[in-house]
Amino acid sequence: MPDETDTPAAPSRRQVFGGRLRELRTQAGRSQADVARAAGLDRAYYVGVEAGKRNISLDNVFALADALAVDIVELFTPPQTK
Amino acid sequence: MPDETDTPAAPSRRQVFGGRLRELRTQAGRSQADVARAAGLDRAYYVGVEAGKRNISLDNVFALADALAVDIVELFTPPQTK
Repeated sequence: MPDETDTPAAPSRRQVFGGRLRELRTQAGRSQADVARAAGLDRAYYVGVEAGKRNISLDNVFALADALAVDIVELFTPPQTK
Repeated sequence: MPDETDTPAAPSRRQVFGGRLRELRTQAGRSQADVARAAGLDRAYYVGVEAGKRNISLDNVFALADALAVDIVELFTPPQTK
């Protein structure tokens, strides 16, 4: 029995993480290529992380926080903008 | 010229993460085997994560937060006990 209200599937946690990463990056006015380079990541891989398609490692999460000059906790704070 | 004060090397970020994980687990009075099972992780792998020896993935960090019934941010909050 399909759900009456056709609510879209909740975004996966990787997508929520990627959305927050994008939010922090755009708030800093930086490009994907710039943040990827600063974090030591391949640009295409970085794009996949923002799209919620990559199961990034702990070391790389720390590298992204450093690249964005934010505390790692910021990356796990829900996106502020809808 | 070695540093005069023989300060031990700062713990790596994986070790800080592992220390916080251990702190949350012991506060909950749970065993490593129990939390590993609840997170769907091999016990030996879990022991390595607590010891700061594993570069755990984002999915597994979320699984650990679920297993400990804490918000993922808690895992990145510095250990409260020295």
